[in-house]
Amino acid sequence: MTTPKSKTPTHAPMSQWPTRDGELIVGGLPLSRLAARVGQTPFYAYDRGLLSERVAHLRAALPAAVKLHYAMKANPMPALVAHLARQVDGVDVASTGEMQVALDAGVSPTEISMAGPGKRESELHQAVAAGILVNLESAAEIGPLRAASDRLGVPARVAVRINPDFELKSSGMKMGGGPKQFGIDAEQVPQVLGQIDQAGLRFEGFHIFAGSQNLKAEAIIEAQLKCFELALRLADAAPAPVRTLNLGGGFGIPYFPGESTLDLRPIGDNLAELAARASERLPTAAIVIELGRYLVGEAGIYVCKVLDRKVSRGHTFLVTDGGLHHHLAASGNFGQVIRKNYPATIGNRAEAPLGEPVSVVGPLCTPLDLLADRMALPQARPGDLVVIFQSGAYGFSASPHRFLGHPAPVEVLV
Amino acid sequence: MTTPKSKTPTHAPMSQWPTRDGELIVGGLPLSRLAARVGQTPFYAYDRGLLSERVAHLRAALPAAVKLHYAMKANPMPALVAHLARQVDGVDVASTGEMQVALDAGVSPTEISMAGPGKRESELHQAVAAGILVNLESAAEIGPLRAASDRLGVPARVAVRINPDFELKSSGMKMGGGPKQFGIDAEQVPQVLGQIDQAGLRFEGFHIFAGSQNLKAEAIIEAQLKCFELALRLADAAPAPVRTLNLGGGFGIPYFPGESTLDLRPIGDNLAELAARASERLPTAAIVIELGRYLVGEAGIYVCKVLDRKVSRGHTFLVTDGGLHHHLAASGNFGQVIRKNYPATIGNRAEAPLGEPVSVVGPLCTPLDLLADRMALPQARPGDLVVIFQSGAYGFSASPHRFLGHPAPVEVLV
Repeated sequence: MTTPKSKTPTHAPMSQWPTRDGELIVGGLPLSRLAARVGQTPFYAYDRGLLSERVAHLRAALPAAVKLHYAMKANPMPALVAHLARQVDGVDVASTGEMQVALDAGVSPTEISMAGPGKRESELHQAVAAGILVNLESAAEIGPLRAASDRLGVPARVAVRINPDFELKSSGMKMGGGPKQFGIDAEQVPQVLGQIDQAGLRFEGFHIFAGSQNLKAEAIIEAQLKCFELALRLADAAPAPVRTLNLGGGFGIPYFPGESTLDLRPIGDNLAELAARASERLPTAAIVIELGRYLVGEAGIYVCKVLDRKVSRGHTFLVTDGGLHHHLAASGNFGQVIRKNYPATIGNRAEAPLGEPVSVVGPLCTPLDLLADRMALPQARPGDLVVIFQSGAYGFSASPHRFLGHPAPVEVLV
Repeated sequence: MTTPKSKTPTHAPMSQWPTRDGELIVGGLPLSRLAARVGQTPFYAYDRGLLSERVAHLRAALPAAVKLHYAMKANPMPALVAHLARQVDGVDVASTGEMQVALDAGVSPTEISMAGPGKRESELHQAVAAGILVNLESAAEIGPLRAASDRLGVPARVAVRINPDFELKSSGMKMGGGPKQFGIDAEQVPQVLGQIDQAGLRFEGFHIFAGSQNLKAEAIIEAQLKCFELALRLADAAPAPVRTLNLGGGFGIPYFPGESTLDLRPIGDNLAELAARASERLPTAAIVIELGRYLVGEAGIYVCKVLDRKVSRGHTFLVTDGGLHHHLAASGNFGQVIRKNYPATIGNRAEAPLGEPVSVVGPLCTPLDLLADRMALPQARPGDLVVIFQSGAYGFSASPHRFLGHPAPVEVLV
């Protein structure tokens, strides 16, 4: 690829994906061969090797005492969950639908926890029956958990999700601090701990989740420190020893021009300190880091095919068979205020020089259906394969497949 | 409801929905009874009577010579399509998936047209086999259409979608003017008409679609006038008489505070003039107005149930079983730059006075999962039914149902 000479911000290099003979290599296969194996475009492909490497990278950077959980909401593909489940220490689910996938993947109920506001009584009943840990988001969940426990003759395992009294700085999404639907306000926690005790639920720990998609190590460190200290304070009111202290995640990946990779080293150093303090102050507690996007986001690509290279009034459009209906986030319609391009390439010409800026669009009758806006890509023609990088998280499952009645994409783990 | 005294912009009154004994009435049924009939929340409900009234309202305002088409992409629910198909003059589809629904609904192929960039060869083959009209978006479609026609021994019916050399002012989405993936640049059309003739395709007319979700009658009138005159100019180069002149739609509905209903009268007057001119200049042509959102948007509601009334640091959250995964547009993640509230109420307390502002959220672990932000609603408690109005278009089919693995909503036509 050509090196940009201007100071325009560029995408982080997608060096996790090798190329060979001009083609991107996915799970050892040239992309065009993988497309032939899949038998259709568009598709999502997730690379097993990259997933395992990411776990190893985290294990090397984080202290051994810290447990690593997978937040399945980022990518609930069953084969991917099964692959990761063998390598992480637990799986966090956001619904009983996700719980079933985790159980099918062979994850022990003792290693599954469920979070999310508005849990229905039937869901709480299922969770107790499964024997998983329920992160309490509201005191209103105590009654149904007790009832389920009584009916089933099975203890209800709970952790308290705390809405902290601070925010994670520079976070893509703020999920703690101020009034929130998530968790129980820190100042209410002692009272709720009393109610848990009275109801006979089995208290196991705390869950504090202050944000997500953060690329600044110092902000993550500060949040983890504050979360840890908040948990120490609240542990005094706990009806039983804290066995699990889930400090959430929030580790970001670089999506847009000018963003760069998160530096794990200082985060690991800080967690080592916290683990040492925990071994004194909360000797029964395991510190848990829960990651979704950071584990899977960079290990996935979305692939669609160029159907038409159309020039309109001097601007080139690559019209593809993929689009917003398959990859809402890449179209800029999933939480972004200003649309920016995901990193992208032409996967079967990945080593070719970049041409004039083109726009990559899909088949939908809406100008929102835009996968890349005026982006320099290798020169493409019909039949070529557009690759959208950083698509392993919040892609397939977070997109409106039915919109306009086109065929759904498929997912493969390679 | 109380009347707001301040000058804060308010939502347009949702007076199409009557109330009785405190409840919203949907298709003649009190909402709580309808919810019991459906057997689950969340659901979308579309009111047959309101759909028919909207068609009648349009028929009364538009000249008899103008044909009314339904743009199915707004809402492809099969029962709704079948209901509307009996009342409109044609159905426009955006994919062969939608084409199948229209054919199943009993729409004659002569009354179906298909638009959209990036039509695959297999789709063009299906369209020719079905005998529907294909709106050409690119000269690249001519070859596959000719091949399909030859293989099938069936003429390929085509209209040319024109990318005009002007934009629809004040439009929610601009779909014409400048470089676009939609249609053929006006200045290229004469040449493409020659190619159509040479390829032996059956030319039937033009399709010019300049925008959508426009609430200003004068902007729509200006665009229709310009589109009409553009078509007159280009008709001289046509290989056959123009039989259909689809001027698109773009009629908006009021979603957000401060927006009000589109005035149809001047649009109808303008179309009457255009129809008179067409009868002289293009005597074989029918003028078609193609509407999606305007036909169905105001006839639909999204209904979810309050699971928890949660107060966090002085702010009240109604935590429901619905959310972004069912109704992406109401969450503000479908083309909106700044999130605004859709009109909403508590459907089983629709006549109660408005209480303090509350936020309506769903069960997802993301702060994007917001159906109403600090909005004054009748005071609600668990079990009550939150209603999001103006949800008949781009709701169910445009939402990422699988996100986080919660149950999908259902749709009913009442």
